[in-house]
Amino acid sequence: MAGWVAWLDLLGVAVFAATGALVASRKQMDLIGFGLMATATGIGGGTLRDVLLGRPVFWIADGRYLAVCLGIAVLVYVGAHVVQRRFVALLWADAIGIAAYAVMGAELGLRSGAAAAVAVVLGVMTATFGGLIRDVLCQETPLILRREVYATAVAAGAGTYVAALALGAGKPWAAALGFLVGFAIRGGGIQFGWT
Amino acid sequence: MAGWVAWLDLLGVAVFAATGALVASRKQMDLIGFGLMATATGIGGGTLRDVLLGRPVFWIADGRYLAVCLGIAVLVYVGAHVVQRRFVALLWADAIGIAAYAVMGAELGLRSGAAAAVAVVLGVMTATFGGLIRDVLCQETPLILRREVYATAVAAGAGTYVAALALGAGKPWAAALGFLVGFAIRGGGIQFGWT
Amino acid sequence: MAGWVAWLDLLGVAVFAATGALVASRKQMDLIGFGLMATATGIGGGTLRDVLLGRPVFWIADGRYLAVCLGIAVLVYVGAHVVQRRFVALLWADAIGIAAYAVMGAELGLRSGAAAAVAVVLGVMTATFGGLIRDVLCQETPLILRREVYATAVAAGAGTYVAALALGAGKPWAAALGFLVGFAIRGGGIQFGWT
Repeated sequence: MAGWVAWLDLLGVAVFAATGALVASRKQMDLIGFGLMATATGIGGGTLRDVLLGRPVFWIADGRYLAVCLGIAVLVYVGAHVVQRRFVALLWADAIGIAAYAVMGAELGLRSGAAAAVAVVLGVMTATFGGLIRDVLCQETPLILRREVYATAVAAGAGTYVAALALGAGKPWAAALGFLVGFAIRGGGIQFGWT
Repeated sequence: MAGWVAWLDLLGVAVFAATGALVASRKQMDLIGFGLMATATGIGGGTLRDVLLGRPVFWIADGRYLAVCLGIAVLVYVGAHVVQRRFVALLWADAIGIAAYAVMGAELGLRSGAAAAVAVVLGVMTATFGGLIRDVLCQETPLILRREVYATAVAAGAGTYVAALALGAGKPWAAALGFLVGFAIRGGGIQFGWT
Repeated sequence: MAGWVAWLDLLGVAVFAATGALVASRKQMDLIGFGLMATATGIGGGTLRDVLLGRPVFWIADGRYLAVCLGIAVLVYVGAHVVQRRFVALLWADAIGIAAYAVMGAELGLRSGAAAAVAVVLGVMTATFGGLIRDVLCQETPLILRREVYATAVAAGAGTYVAALALGAGKPWAAALGFLVGFAIRGGGIQFGWT
């Protein structure tokens, strides 16, 4: 992957890793637990995407992704106590992650020749699977099943990207639009308690 | 896939999607939750099967499977309140699904060159994985681990299919027999409370 | 796979299958439940490893692995009541399994061209995924998330193996050393309650 897709990918890995580490912090795990949760959450969605599409799994060929996950685990371990409201930080980091991954999962689906609607579903899966692993591992109710326009935001972001492309928009513009739509809807859900 | 395998596949996707949507109804989710649960349950088993066998994942190349899942989610969302006993409807739809998927998973295992016993295990995995995802997502005890001849029915259906083929039966007859054996055992478990 | 890798593989499958069956025993499942838990736990880690690395899944081509899982399920079903302290037996069998799988997962990662640090992570995933499935299926808190130097032991075993190879050790020596380091740390955790 190159260019903007690689950046969205790295952004998604980093913020999802941060959400995993923040959950480790809430559960008072040790440093190893931080590393595990950050890695599983950070690479989970992209791993599912690559396995479903029959692509080589992205973090095996390029060791930098794991380095990002482990580095963020250490940063959150050292610094999480200065964050007053860790659950709120987790929600906003997660919102950035799902908006980035929804667009990127849809893009990779389209590149594999999937139909537009299938690409949207791949975007939703890529965006939500890491957080799902995080929540199942910690035995919390998955965010995606709480009534907070979570899945709506993901589907709207991926759908906006695919629709903008179909209407002739350039890829970077379509990606920016899809990211903003997904992030705005999820952010509204967090800020105003939309259900 | 063509012919009877494609029909068993579509039948399995449809009834599993219905069970996912019925669980969404019991948990009073919104329409998005119905769509998520119907899709994850409907395509879960076949996705595991394709990943394990190294085949292209079936619903990525053919968008009709997702359309079926989402269509059924809408139907159940609109109509579930008229079903008096939703949990019983869920159990019977699930019984049809596991009987269909047990046979089809075993068949695709045999086509990939797996030994007879391995094909039976692939049938069991294909038949039970979608429901397992459904139950883990909703934090319910998986049906397969309750004491209700559940796994016995799945293994018997897949085993009957493989054994009938080995004894020289034609594929459609073996498939019909395997389906009926699996459905009858599971149905007896539901109806008479076999444990 | 041939030689010592095949033996580590079979050892890991066997002891993980035993831990799955011991959990089935604690949960008072029937014989089918024993078979399911033994199989899912026994082959889970290696299946994830093969899917991530894009290799053919090991137990599909070679039916002996499933035979080992089912045979051990029957043995534990018949004999578990003579084991006074089943949870302790489970912990020690699991310790053998994670030490064997950590080394083997790292080795297969290296063979696929992964960098040293990535190979260690593959070792950790291979070693812990079967037990994770076991614990999620039975709705217990995953062993890996309890504070008992569990993940530390796995990472140390895989890391020792990769480091010893890098320092020029022969593969069997590096494998034996990695196995012993992983087993000793985890065993110390069990015996002395290290946290």
